Amino acid sequence: MRGPIRVLMLGTGQMGAGIARLVLQKPGLDLAGAYGRRVHRAGTDLGEAIGLGRILGVPISVDLERLITETRPEIAIQATCSTAADAMPEIATLLRHGVNVISIAEEMAYPKYRSPAIAEELHWLAVKQGVSVLGTGVNPGFVLDLLVITLTGACADIQSITARRVNDLSAYGPSVLRSQGVGLSPQDFQAGLRNGAVAGHIGFSESIHMIAKAVGWNIDNIQETREPIVSRVRRQTAFVTVEPGHAAGCNHTAVAYAADKPVITLLHPQQVLPGLEGTQTGDMIDIKGTPDIHLEGRPEIPGGQATIALAVNMIPRVLNAAPGLYNMAQLPAPAAMLADSRSFLREELIEVRND
Amino acid sequence: MRGPIRVLMLGTGQMGAGIARLVLQKPGLDLAGAYGRRVHRAGTDLGEAIGLGRILGVPISVDLERLITETRPEIAIQATCSTAADAMPEIATLLRHGVNVISIAEEMAYPKYRSPAIAEELHWLAVKQGVSVLGTGVNPGFVLDLLVITLTGACADIQSITARRVNDLSAYGPSVLRSQGVGLSPQDFQAGLRNGAVAGHIGFSESIHMIAKAVGWNIDNIQETREPIVSRVRRQTAFVTVEPGHAAGCNHTAVAYAADKPVITLLHPQQVLPGLEGTQTGDMIDIKGTPDIHLEGRPEIPGGQATIALAVNMIPRVLNAAPGLYNMAQLPAPAAMLADSRSFLREELIEVRND
Repeated sequence: MRGPIRVLMLGTGQMGAGIARLVLQKPGLDLAGAYGRRVHRAGTDLGEAIGLGRILGVPISVDLERLITETRPEIAIQATCSTAADAMPEIATLLRHGVNVISIAEEMAYPKYRSPAIAEELHWLAVKQGVSVLGTGVNPGFVLDLLVITLTGACADIQSITARRVNDLSAYGPSVLRSQGVGLSPQDFQAGLRNGAVAGHIGFSESIHMIAKAVGWNIDNIQETREPIVSRVRRQTAFVTVEPGHAAGCNHTAVAYAADKPVITLLHPQQVLPGLEGTQTGDMIDIKGTPDIHLEGRPEIPGGQATIALAVNMIPRVLNAAPGLYNMAQLPAPAAMLADSRSFLREELIEVRND
Repeated sequence: MRGPIRVLMLGTGQMGAGIARLVLQKPGLDLAGAYGRRVHRAGTDLGEAIGLGRILGVPISVDLERLITETRPEIAIQATCSTAADAMPEIATLLRHGVNVISIAEEMAYPKYRSPAIAEELHWLAVKQGVSVLGTGVNPGFVLDLLVITLTGACADIQSITARRVNDLSAYGPSVLRSQGVGLSPQDFQAGLRNGAVAGHIGFSESIHMIAKAVGWNIDNIQETREPIVSRVRRQTAFVTVEPGHAAGCNHTAVAYAADKPVITLLHPQQVLPGLEGTQTGDMIDIKGTPDIHLEGRPEIPGGQATIALAVNMIPRVLNAAPGLYNMAQLPAPAAMLADSRSFLREELIEVRND
């Protein structure tokens, strides 16, 4: 059998740390190195940085080019940012060195719509270098797009699609809570919307265009609304206290129109402790068509855990793919990787077949 | 733009007729011809045979070889049978003439386990001829396998998977009802199990091995049980009357073991009018792992409509694939085809891209 798949980790925050820990657990994967953007972390051992409680002998580097040359990874997982523009330079560097890339940057789930030039450049660079790039994550990348698309496969025709994800932000830290306006007064929430401090969910246009592309709809227009989820009770987490009358989070929705008809509606209210007011968390997909399809799950698929799992589980899919830029609907379905990671590689499958 | 995709239909029963009607509705698809096994139907116009109420100018042929030569299809959809052995000769003939194939024969959803020699032969024949073969359908092929696999993609680890599909057979005719023992006394049901007249669901081992292959489990053993669903009330459909105390259908379950641990449990009770005793129909997937994932939908995804849609929607996926034999987990996710079918072809995508 071939040697382990050498994986380079970009980013050592909450997601990066979780992905690194999972890479370390998976037989057939080798954590080749770690890159971080923050200079003050340079040289810190990764084991320490991700709270592993032991030294891994993998120092975090801030010099990506040198790190690639020294560690010669086959694939890198990027967990450093959210936008395609911010993700681009690191991904381009990796591709130029012949390294495949999986990014959890939200906009990389479907960069073609919001950043067509970046998508085009990355696609042809990947093709030229003979490697592949994929954007993934729980959302965008899975719940409000890939699952929706898969379910449409059972439909002969569709009038409209509605999907809703109600989650609980209690486990998240200050930066996520700020982006959803948690704890703000209604006035401060509105001010935050105006100055961009309150962003709501990143990924609606990516999910909508991924669905539209898959089924062949032309989207003319997307209307988004962001409103405070005003709490009637006191909600308290380790990082924030929401007073009654203040925002427990952001109710963000997007409606996509094709030929003036609302065809895709995505709803994603994000807040802390929705259960205190009797709101159950969960995922729901509702397709009006031939036939109607309705599926839901409570609680919601946990976002952090799912993003970490998807990033790692997609490794063999990306390595098996023909060179280019992919979204989740363009590769075979993700699957849990419960055997040696190498056994999911095409070369390995063919070898076994020929035995 | 290239000419329409020429589709050959094999089988003009309930499923074949539904698929043919959908092919006729889809822009970019051309129903090139129709093949039937029953000699007495030879020469009948397809429009008449599928209840379209108009003449299509497509006579049903019983000579597959000649039909292929005369109609030169790119792809054929097979809806003539259930087993791989029965499906094999028609598929091999199609492949030898360079025709891609989608089959809804249940065993073709994952022929590798039950019929490894057939799977091997079809794979290499397809490779040699530069075409592809796919088995699909609602189940096996979608609800109890592809959807399950896709959801496992969000898991870092899994202890066990349980999936259940509760459906209503009221719309089905005598042959399906007989195969589920509907209307039989408990004694006759048991006799039917022994002599094979009561078969239950075809597809558990296909679904189980498709899941196991996708996640990397080695299944040692599958234990299946078939029991009568004894009705407490009278249940009457157009085709059958079930007296109280008699079987309303068959409760068929399968448990798959890996290293003596039950890892996959599939439950598929099929009966007429379950609502008369308060039983709701529906689909349910429950994964115990990291994280747990639970999804369900009521009523169930309608079997006939979904099988018809999947068979047609997978056409571009099969034409886009590298040559070989595929199961649903090895191709990109299915999606509804709501634009000209040709726009989903890879050659077309590249052409548009280069414009």
